[in-house]
Amino acid sequence: MMAVSYSLCPQFLRVSSGARLCISSGGNNWDTHKKKTRHLVCASTQKPVKDFCIESKAQTLLDSVKWDDKGLAVAIAQNVDTGAILMQGFANRDAVLTTISSRKATFYSRSRSMLWTKGETSMNFINIHDIFLDCDRDSIIYLGKPDGPTCHTGSETCYYTSVFDLKELQQVEGNKLALTTLYSLESTISQRKAELAVEENGKSSWTKRLLKHNDLLCSKIREEAEELCKTLEENEDKSRTASEMADVLYHAMVLLAVKDVKIEDVMQVLRQRFSQSGIEEKRSRISES
Amino acid sequence: MMAVSYSLCPQFLRVSSGARLCISSGGNNWDTHKKKTRHLVCASTQKPVKDFCIESKAQTLLDSVKWDDKGLAVAIAQNVDTGAILMQGFANRDAVLTTISSRKATFYSRSRSMLWTKGETSMNFINIHDIFLDCDRDSIIYLGKPDGPTCHTGSETCYYTSVFDLKELQQVEGNKLALTTLYSLESTISQRKAELAVEENGKSSWTKRLLKHNDLLCSKIREEAEELCKTLEENEDKSRTASEMADVLYHAMVLLAVKDVKIEDVMQVLRQRFSQSGIEEKRSRISES
Repeated sequence: MMAVSYSLCPQFLRVSSGARLCISSGGNNWDTHKKKTRHLVCASTQKPVKDFCIESKAQTLLDSVKWDDKGLAVAIAQNVDTGAILMQGFANRDAVLTTISSRKATFYSRSRSMLWTKGETSMNFINIHDIFLDCDRDSIIYLGKPDGPTCHTGSETCYYTSVFDLKELQQVEGNKLALTTLYSLESTISQRKAELAVEENGKSSWTKRLLKHNDLLCSKIREEAEELCKTLEENEDKSRTASEMADVLYHAMVLLAVKDVKIEDVMQVLRQRFSQSGIEEKRSRISES
Repeated sequence: MMAVSYSLCPQFLRVSSGARLCISSGGNNWDTHKKKTRHLVCASTQKPVKDFCIESKAQTLLDSVKWDDKGLAVAIAQNVDTGAILMQGFANRDAVLTTISSRKATFYSRSRSMLWTKGETSMNFINIHDIFLDCDRDSIIYLGKPDGPTCHTGSETCYYTSVFDLKELQQVEGNKLALTTLYSLESTISQRKAELAVEENGKSSWTKRLLKHNDLLCSKIREEAEELCKTLEENEDKSRTASEMADVLYHAMVLLAVKDVKIEDVMQVLRQRFSQSGIEEKRSRISES
């Protein structure tokens, strides 16, 4: 098992703690690795080969990180489905290695001088899908799926204090999360839905009319899908396609609000589907029907 | 002009450099402010009242920031439309105030000991839509729209080195950006489109078949929109709605790829539309037709 050729992939030839040794061939990706098992050698069989390769690569990458004078780098946790920045902390080498092995976002607490895994108290872990380093090698993204609200206040993320939102200092309403476009629209639609429940009959906004009338809503969704297709069939310009896609999205999102479905749930379906070759699976299902 | 009542909104009573004075009534939001102009008093008329209010509020918020021993806090630039984390730097109080007044993401360069505005050399500014502080008041999000690639390497963002992607160290292919679900799917579809151009006729994936056959693609979009509507009309369960919405999104995104339209462009349309009450405008347009 140990008779390996160093030339196959020198970057992977590193023995870390726990006598992990991982040699890969020059394959393009993990699928290729699996096919070329004759070139894969592992000194320990306690963990899957892929994990060893990742940990070995991580060791090499972490050697290149420009840790600050306290041995830390900035670590930003981001929701893999929504893109929301959940929280920001700091990580040392051990924190990143722990994150890789446990797949739970782990930081170094500067106040307590120790590692801490987000969720170890609240159970709201951030389940890691990938980790990225920036070009300068001094900043890290933990891309993951949170089990629940990330902030200790119960807020979905820690960023709910807007400088540009004049409401906040007056304590008139609740907080405003840092939302990107799609989720900001979702929030607006959701507000309209909440207002519907309490308001008298009056002049309704278009969103409220759609929320109240399923027949109108469904006819609009069919109409907008039709118009989107026409931009292709009738070779309309790109700006028209973007505009019609925006219409499809907006109207479909009102339907999601009626059904109490979050965009994040839809993203999760998409992620699970295409990360498991589900798109091809869908094709098979369609072909059969 | 200076005879103002402190009690109206004490948080806003602050005179910063340039003799800016902004008093607002206790209105709920900016629209309310505009309606109650009798309560708005500004000592200078060089800038719009709203900007003064924001800058005054910012001064108050910045007083609460826990700057580190070098007077800095982490500043993360995020794309308002896609949610992509563009870059991370540090900001001092002046950097944030400059960002607020110029609406261009500005940082403090630790290596050059001076302020720098992202884009001052490359012209790829990050145009600020909002700024958020976290719950601990030691981390800042600059939510903005980049004029072009943010990274000095020409990459869209600085985060293109994945720990979990085994390709990178072997220098086989290009870099893999930190993409969240929707943009990861967009990237996959785009790859399939690129492969179409070079590959021989063979067994095509479902995505490639859709990319090649506009009639099939459009019939699928119409079918999936129909199925999404049915989940509402026939009171199907929430998971069915999420699944059908995922289908609508995926197939519509293939159409976007055929038309060379980016999801980010669609998000921009949505943002511009609903931030300008465009949804209501759309309603008017529809009512007229």
